[in-house]
Amino acid sequence: MTGFFVFWEAIVILLFTDFGSSDIYVGQVKAKLTSLVPTACVIDLLHDVPNFDACAGAYLLAALHESLPLNSVTMAVVDPGVGSARQPVVVEADGRWYVGPDNGLLSVVAGRAETARVWRINWLNPHVSDSFHGRDIFAPVAAMLERQEWSPEVLNPIECLDVILDTHGVEKVIYIDHYGNAMTGISGKNINDAAVLNLEDQSFRYARVFSEVPAGDAFWYRNSIGLVEIAMNCRSAARALNITVGDAVRWS
Amino acid sequence: MTGFFVFWEAIVILLFTDFGSSDIYVGQVKAKLTSLVPTACVIDLLHDVPNFDACAGAYLLAALHESLPLNSVTMAVVDPGVGSARQPVVVEADGRWYVGPDNGLLSVVAGRAETARVWRINWLNPHVSDSFHGRDIFAPVAAMLERQEWSPEVLNPIECLDVILDTHGVEKVIYIDHYGNAMTGISGKNINDAAVLNLEDQSFRYARVFSEVPAGDAFWYRNSIGLVEIAMNCRSAARALNITVGDAVRWS
Amino acid sequence: MTGFFVFWEAIVILLFTDFGSSDIYVGQVKAKLTSLVPTACVIDLLHDVPNFDACAGAYLLAALHESLPLNSVTMAVVDPGVGSARQPVVVEADGRWYVGPDNGLLSVVAGRAETARVWRINWLNPHVSDSFHGRDIFAPVAAMLERQEWSPEVLNPIECLDVILDTHGVEKVIYIDHYGNAMTGISGKNINDAAVLNLEDQSFRYARVFSEVPAGDAFWYRNSIGLVEIAMNCRSAARALNITVGDAVRWS
Repeated sequence: MTGFFVFWEAIVILLFTDFGSSDIYVGQVKAKLTSLVPTACVIDLLHDVPNFDACAGAYLLAALHESLPLNSVTMAVVDPGVGSARQPVVVEADGRWYVGPDNGLLSVVAGRAETARVWRINWLNPHVSDSFHGRDIFAPVAAMLERQEWSPEVLNPIECLDVILDTHGVEKVIYIDHYGNAMTGISGKNINDAAVLNLEDQSFRYARVFSEVPAGDAFWYRNSIGLVEIAMNCRSAARALNITVGDAVRWS
Repeated sequence: MTGFFVFWEAIVILLFTDFGSSDIYVGQVKAKLTSLVPTACVIDLLHDVPNFDACAGAYLLAALHESLPLNSVTMAVVDPGVGSARQPVVVEADGRWYVGPDNGLLSVVAGRAETARVWRINWLNPHVSDSFHGRDIFAPVAAMLERQEWSPEVLNPIECLDVILDTHGVEKVIYIDHYGNAMTGISGKNINDAAVLNLEDQSFRYARVFSEVPAGDAFWYRNSIGLVEIAMNCRSAARALNITVGDAVRWS
Repeated sequence: MTGFFVFWEAIVILLFTDFGSSDIYVGQVKAKLTSLVPTACVIDLLHDVPNFDACAGAYLLAALHESLPLNSVTMAVVDPGVGSARQPVVVEADGRWYVGPDNGLLSVVAGRAETARVWRINWLNPHVSDSFHGRDIFAPVAAMLERQEWSPEVLNPIECLDVILDTHGVEKVIYIDHYGNAMTGISGKNINDAAVLNLEDQSFRYARVFSEVPAGDAFWYRNSIGLVEIAMNCRSAARALNITVGDAVRWS
């Protein structure tokens, strides 16, 4: 608790990808970022977005948006179309910055923001791999934003994104955490506590928190990022009830 | 190896949780910590404590205690009772600091220390989620400790913890690592090399280190954090012998 | 994007191990490194090298070599022989530094470099565990290199490594990533696009990138670290085709 404290504003770059938290990709991105912005604090927000699922990623990222520091830059990459015609873009949404592919992933964050701006990335550097734009384009652009080196040759303002998802949410399971809790793409804000959530032939009543129900009981609640989530106290709801990403839910 | 070196004492916050190393929780904790203590070095000590198992976590944390830097702060959260009446606490044990729930998790570290002090956290901020006190209470308190902003309104000294586990250890498997080695809650310090360890109808003799036995042979040894561990050379003991967390062991 | 920027050259230590990205080992290494080099940026390059497989690790590390910053130090540990007679060494290869066991792991990086130098580590500190030299020897030596504290008592120059693998590569699967893509130990540089790759009774034609083939189709391509890789668009090749690390491949 002793020591010499130097306080400055944190320079924060967050990573949100389907690169896998145990794989060879994230380290290469960090090596690139560190060489370009040595003082940045690079935070792994999530690397296990369901593989190739830009839609699930879009709703999850929008739910995490409020947890992100103002002025932070998030490199968001779920990019099965890497190397194809889909465009790389930058989005500024209510004071947070995002860099990633224009495939829907950033469209919910942008669509829900009070103020949002969008730029297309015109990447000039020829040394780019065909399959790893996270390391070769998105990381350098994130670094550029953090360094405030704004180049009009690289960033062209555009009116709107090519791929735009419904900002209202999606009545599906979009993510299952390691406890086995199943998050839906539904915001919990305007849902009444009396509502009953259904998934196939199962139905779930509301509880405020895990410790309010007996161990092993299933319920729905508003989770810590504001989403409606199906959970069990001290057990895996996903395993016990055989829930997978993409399962449809509905209210009754 | 070249460069401009600035040396100061490290400001280290360690994280020890069951939040999962691949999940959405750790990144949110780090974003919060970074905004409060930009210069802190945040280290993931373990995020795969067996889910909801504060007892296993307590013995594992106590074994890791000596590896932690003096003056470091460890945020330790295995907290199935989040949102219930269990209290948040701070423990100082032989010069290392811990923040977490009063559910037994910190009691072995505290009980084994030569000098330990305990405070109850009286959290005044109303913006707290029901289910994620790691992000909303424990992380800000860890940051407060690192910044030496000691508020008597927030931290009330108490005599002892509510939930106290046996400091001698536990004759059970408390953790299985990714190699398949099975750690017990037994300290290896006072065990004789001639002792034979039993798990159900299997028995294990001592070896100093993996390379002393043929590949595929099982044995017990004192692991690198001082615990008695069942292992196999170049194979997974847990898979080969069907060992799981909670299995009882005994000496003969 | 605002804030007070301090720019210095990054002090980068990378970790490349089979310690597991979710396990108790990496955090202890980082706690040690942070106490010795508080200003270092420690990056997880990979902790899921196939367990105990120094050969797979050697070809993977050599492929990652070019992604590593100049003057960085990589602690590379895949070390089933820990505690035996195998020696700890330091390798400098084309301006990147490596610390690890002399069991083949560093030999491909060294063998492919234009200029390489090798030192044996003569570790004088008696406080060393039998089974965790990553924390107790390799991390302190990596820190010593970063701090430019070069001690001739600790590092003795030697002519060559004890264990040397074929630098040309290996016609085997050496790593399967979390998408299910199977990387081989073959450099893609001198392979003709018309070549057909075979694994058991299956054969694969070349494609430049995932989005060039229909979803579910298998192909080989040069991956982002230069290796020949078997992949499927938007599916797991390893699961669909039952590929595991060690499987032999050949060209036709």
